[in-house]
Amino acid sequence: MKIIVDAMGGDNAPEEIVKGALNAVEAVGVDVVLVGRGEEILRTLERSGNSNLPNGVEIVDASEVIEIEDDPASAIRLKKDSSITVALTLLRDGKGDALVSAGSTGALLSGATLIVKRVKGIRRAALALFVPNSASGFLLIDCGANAECTPEHLVQFAYMGSFYAESIMQIKSPRVGLLNNGTERTKGTPLQLQVYELLEQACGSGSLNFVGNVEAKDAMKGVCDVLVCDGFTGNVFLKSIEGVASMIMSELKGVFMSSARTKLGALLVKNGLSGLKEKLNPDLVGGTPLLGISKPVIKAHGSSNAFAISNAIRQANVAAKADIAAKLSANISKMKASGRDGE
Amino acid sequence: MKIIVDAMGGDNAPEEIVKGALNAVEAVGVDVVLVGRGEEILRTLERSGNSNLPNGVEIVDASEVIEIEDDPASAIRLKKDSSITVALTLLRDGKGDALVSAGSTGALLSGATLIVKRVKGIRRAALALFVPNSASGFLLIDCGANAECTPEHLVQFAYMGSFYAESIMQIKSPRVGLLNNGTERTKGTPLQLQVYELLEQACGSGSLNFVGNVEAKDAMKGVCDVLVCDGFTGNVFLKSIEGVASMIMSELKGVFMSSARTKLGALLVKNGLSGLKEKLNPDLVGGTPLLGISKPVIKAHGSSNAFAISNAIRQANVAAKADIAAKLSANISKMKASGRDGE
Repeated sequence: MKIIVDAMGGDNAPEEIVKGALNAVEAVGVDVVLVGRGEEILRTLERSGNSNLPNGVEIVDASEVIEIEDDPASAIRLKKDSSITVALTLLRDGKGDALVSAGSTGALLSGATLIVKRVKGIRRAALALFVPNSASGFLLIDCGANAECTPEHLVQFAYMGSFYAESIMQIKSPRVGLLNNGTERTKGTPLQLQVYELLEQACGSGSLNFVGNVEAKDAMKGVCDVLVCDGFTGNVFLKSIEGVASMIMSELKGVFMSSARTKLGALLVKNGLSGLKEKLNPDLVGGTPLLGISKPVIKAHGSSNAFAISNAIRQANVAAKADIAAKLSANISKMKASGRDGE
Repeated sequence: MKIIVDAMGGDNAPEEIVKGALNAVEAVGVDVVLVGRGEEILRTLERSGNSNLPNGVEIVDASEVIEIEDDPASAIRLKKDSSITVALTLLRDGKGDALVSAGSTGALLSGATLIVKRVKGIRRAALALFVPNSASGFLLIDCGANAECTPEHLVQFAYMGSFYAESIMQIKSPRVGLLNNGTERTKGTPLQLQVYELLEQACGSGSLNFVGNVEAKDAMKGVCDVLVCDGFTGNVFLKSIEGVASMIMSELKGVFMSSARTKLGALLVKNGLSGLKEKLNPDLVGGTPLLGISKPVIKAHGSSNAFAISNAIRQANVAAKADIAAKLSANISKMKASGRDGE
């Protein structure tokens, strides 16, 4: 497998990206194509002790970088030689099997849709994030790509999430829940009411294992493997998890640091606490797949370090093998909401 | 002040409700009207050592109870002698200054709207919950009363929340934020885009201190005093806070209980941890005001114990003195979205 890596994307580019890619060549056993300002990449390679290009590593030059302040949609068109644009074009042209970028989510999203294209019949690509919980975690889809959604979009997200959970997370017949403000079938806005019906039909026909409406607190307890929602709600959910976890961890730190007695206490539970922190750490999983695109695209966290990038490349490798796009194509007829909200 | 208390609402009714009310008569210095099955209430009073009706306590008989499985909207009409219906009627008729119930949120909401009525010009009543964060907390409005909202609803929630924060939480010029999936003004669905503009206008005219779009994670850091959203998103936010906090606390327990060493560690930080748990405890605040109703109605948590009920009664007393409804009435002309989404 050959993974295309946007070497210029994210807060720690290109250093950490290049290091992570080199690491993945060894640890994952893939080839990588580093896309970005060639000279900067070469200098970074030299600084990590590689005066020659290591085996399994290619560089493709791209002179521009899409910055966080650029408008994502227009940046893809205006910066034709940006690392994201060039990387996506390489992916489209079969010069690699999957792509990893820690750059602008919006630019990656518009670029992937524009250049690599969606699977035929899929209305929207969605971001699917693995969220740790008290059980073995769940996949939140969409977690921010589409603020506004139709029932058909959400039904397609349910299938994408289910295929991903089955292929990549190795879960047989993944339990798909609909994020809602209560568990009764009458809960939610007209969007949730319609999606409930459509998912129930899909479950009845054996295509999906729909477990009904799921409240945010129960998702954290582990009642489903895939949690479907519009990207606005998913984003709020995701950022509230982040905010609450960080608040509690910082309050805990305050508790532990308040006296000599508590500092000793902290010392005694140190290992366990590190384990908990690790569980809540997004770097471990590495990346968020952009599902519905015809080839695997993985968005790594903007603050990714080498470890996170290496993990994202591992994930890209698995995704390339699993070929979710082919599964979506084969099942696309089930994912149409009988024309009631076709675009 | 005289506070009307639904003695039959919540998981621990009537015992804990009655105890909490008795406590509030002493601690808060209010009179209470206990509404519910008279004999049950009397027996509960006897069990707590009151063979005579204590000073400041009245009982009003109501033979029915709205159960959690009843449909909220129809229950109010069908169970005319339910404790919630009777309590709301007493409030409407001036037989008390405010109402506290730990019963069905939906029934309280429909009943309050139907019987006590909204402030003239207010389109929807909203639930405003105080959420603890790293700073001094914030008011989340709406946290579940209205799944679907128009821009005008959200603008009214912003005013309600601001008046409440000013009068009850004693915050001068409360910072009002709009919950969104990013901080840029272009973020969100058409709902957030329109509300942003309207709140900006209100801020320009000096009626509100609008601080812009706020992400869930930043709300937990304390960037605003009032956070405005539709009830669907607010409910998901709230329940994710609940879910994440409970997940982390239970993981922590696992860490602390894993060995003799960590158990000793736990002992050393015990006091600090209790403080943190208390900070995250909804019982301390006691209740969620139902704003936009013409008289103060406080929803106490369904699992309220006597302590929580006593706190909710304290809050009802403050709310009755503050008279938010009068402030809303006086400012109603500012809260109209110039007819663009009037009903």
